[in-house]
Amino acid sequence: MKEFFEPKSIAVIGASRNRGKVGNAIFRNLLRSKAKVYPINIKAKKVEGRKAYDKVFKVDLAIIAIPAPYVPQVLEECGKVGVKHAIIISAGFSEVGRKDLSEEVLKIVRKYGIRVVGPNCLGIVNTRWMNATFFEGMPEKGGISIISQSGALGVALLDRMIEEGIGLSKFISVGNMLDLGIEDFVEYLNGDRDTKVIALYVESLKRGRKFLEVVKRCEKPVVVLKAGRGEAGKKAASSHTGAMAGSFEVYDGVFRQYGLKRVDDVNEFFKLSQVLEKRTIKGKKVVVVTNAGGPGVLAADACEHFGMKMVKLPKEVIKELNSVLPSAWSHNNPIDIIGDARAERYKKVFETLSKYDFYDLLLCILTPQMMTEPEKTAVELAKLSRKKRCFACFMGGEKVKGAKKLLKRKGVLNFEEPWEAFKVLSKLS
Amino acid sequence: MKEFFEPKSIAVIGASRNRGKVGNAIFRNLLRSKAKVYPINIKAKKVEGRKAYDKVFKVDLAIIAIPAPYVPQVLEECGKVGVKHAIIISAGFSEVGRKDLSEEVLKIVRKYGIRVVGPNCLGIVNTRWMNATFFEGMPEKGGISIISQSGALGVALLDRMIEEGIGLSKFISVGNMLDLGIEDFVEYLNGDRDTKVIALYVESLKRGRKFLEVVKRCEKPVVVLKAGRGEAGKKAASSHTGAMAGSFEVYDGVFRQYGLKRVDDVNEFFKLSQVLEKRTIKGKKVVVVTNAGGPGVLAADACEHFGMKMVKLPKEVIKELNSVLPSAWSHNNPIDIIGDARAERYKKVFETLSKYDFYDLLLCILTPQMMTEPEKTAVELAKLSRKKRCFACFMGGEKVKGAKKLLKRKGVLNFEEPWEAFKVLSKLS
Repeated sequence: MKEFFEPKSIAVIGASRNRGKVGNAIFRNLLRSKAKVYPINIKAKKVEGRKAYDKVFKVDLAIIAIPAPYVPQVLEECGKVGVKHAIIISAGFSEVGRKDLSEEVLKIVRKYGIRVVGPNCLGIVNTRWMNATFFEGMPEKGGISIISQSGALGVALLDRMIEEGIGLSKFISVGNMLDLGIEDFVEYLNGDRDTKVIALYVESLKRGRKFLEVVKRCEKPVVVLKAGRGEAGKKAASSHTGAMAGSFEVYDGVFRQYGLKRVDDVNEFFKLSQVLEKRTIKGKKVVVVTNAGGPGVLAADACEHFGMKMVKLPKEVIKELNSVLPSAWSHNNPIDIIGDARAERYKKVFETLSKYDFYDLLLCILTPQMMTEPEKTAVELAKLSRKKRCFACFMGGEKVKGAKKLLKRKGVLNFEEPWEAFKVLSKLS
Repeated sequence: MKEFFEPKSIAVIGASRNRGKVGNAIFRNLLRSKAKVYPINIKAKKVEGRKAYDKVFKVDLAIIAIPAPYVPQVLEECGKVGVKHAIIISAGFSEVGRKDLSEEVLKIVRKYGIRVVGPNCLGIVNTRWMNATFFEGMPEKGGISIISQSGALGVALLDRMIEEGIGLSKFISVGNMLDLGIEDFVEYLNGDRDTKVIALYVESLKRGRKFLEVVKRCEKPVVVLKAGRGEAGKKAASSHTGAMAGSFEVYDGVFRQYGLKRVDDVNEFFKLSQVLEKRTIKGKKVVVVTNAGGPGVLAADACEHFGMKMVKLPKEVIKELNSVLPSAWSHNNPIDIIGDARAERYKKVFETLSKYDFYDLLLCILTPQMMTEPEKTAVELAKLSRKKRCFACFMGGEKVKGAKKLLKRKGVLNFEEPWEAFKVLSKLS
């Protein structure tokens, strides 16, 4: 697999001079990679100032972005010169009813022993090495690796990661999975040092048994957004990739059995992946610290609704908190430290709680009231997070923007509100 | 009620010179209001450059921000000079076990016939008139009015509305509801011309019967975020406001019966309110137009999951779409117009669909691919939205930022992803 993720040399077949073309965009992205990259273009002498070649030659990886009918011929040429790895970006195969063309391609790649990603895909990103897609831009380096069966969704995922500053290790758009499938990449990513969590967008599995074997052995957390749930979705999936989606209930049951974490939407997909990127959480016992009563109630609601436990505060903890909090504090969990709490008051509570082990995770709620110091409080929470598993729930907009950025930088995940927090966190235990 | 929302004269009792104090913040906010505003301060000659008074006199509205023990005395003075409306911001009453103080206050206001908002509240905002809270800043004018039983949550709501550009008409933080309660303000807002939708954060209703009478008569849509769902939440609510939350199932049943729309979280609270701010949707028939197959499948899934219907395309529509779309389009709903769709292709599809009535709402999905023109597409969607009930689902980050802003300006609501869209939209019918 190394040639797909850390190729030393890449040929872009169909590297156009036209900046509006996919082949050109891929080539330009690759100019900023760690690989030597060669434009293959039968008409042009130069592409983006680099010498173009009219024939492919032996490289670690060929990326093919030409109309589908020409793909078999090009793969023949690849095979003859000894290229063993190809990403076929081109669409126009089984997904539009051209099974014949797919089969033709498959015969050729089997003949030469070429391993193929695609066709009908966006390509591969390895944030340490290259962006081998036509998507412009690259998320920052991180521990989340994504395998997506939809290229178009992949674009949205990458774009959102950039905006929200979510770190990526590898991204693979598997397309029609003519040769390599989701399971192959899960296996690869399980052995990849940089990947801490594997996040999948799956419509259908071609080799279910292999997939199960792989996830059974997989030591890393796997998050799955499974599409094609009901009849409407299956129908849409079938017209999308030409594959049948199978029973959602069966998938869901199997995912549970093997410890995969299924999510309902993209937001959860990212939030849960970010939680799992760090160490996991063993239990369900929650402590909430808040400067806001209403959000505290919402937290208690959500905690219970999603099957987690708002743990009872031990007597000695209450006693200790009594000595640092104004008498109007809630004397209970959620620990409501009252609307006039400055960072110093949060800090004292954190210091007390850091000494105890009666809880598995702490959620710190803040709304920007008169005396509130969102940024300073974020700093205190970040300190606590070195000792305890902590999450933030800084609610609001303009007034908590800076604090949210700070939390992000310090590696403390912020949830927009308690409902989101417990929906995601409840999937951990 | 007019004196609470459009007072001509306001006395701020406890208008401090100290910028860190609540009374000062309220006074400064009111300097930018349409009311004449007077600082009442027994020690200062001037507050924020305005002449201060050591005694209250007859005004439309008194806002009280002094320590709780002094509130009864001040209300006596208000009563004597003929003040008939007061907002008590001060905390330290029944919510901290001081029922005696609450009752003392109640006796006085009954004696003089003073109507009271609070105590233990954030105040009132009327975007056409004033910000009578200590929260700095004000959302833009709009048709959503909010009644919140939590001041601290109110702060987060207002702050988020500012950041996201969600329009507000009135905001009322009801606090302990010693006198006026949620039901009184629902009644008022139902008759308020600027209010198009009433959104509530409720922990407990003090006068359930009155509330039901009011919502029965209410002609405007009402969105409810009900806190205190389970045991944990009720316990938290009880320690928050000192009131019992009652059975969530009973509330939920009653809400349903009276057509109130209950939401689970703040995100839904705002999204549903924004949808309802405009005309409602009568049926469940959905059409999805997308440039992205995967998100189309996710849309079909979510649509079905939340009980809406991905409607079958009539033959004549398919025929007409055949003439404007490339042959690889899905020939089905979701209408997948393929990843290379520019705005022009979206436009043609919109023009076709604008002529038919086989659907109740349209969701337009876009992910930022190679050829995609997010902003131009947003413009086309906005045009269609004049004829049909349309929603956007522009997925991604940086690359769709500008288009999202444009949609916002043109009044087309954007959802982050299909799951969110159908979760919210399914509550309409």
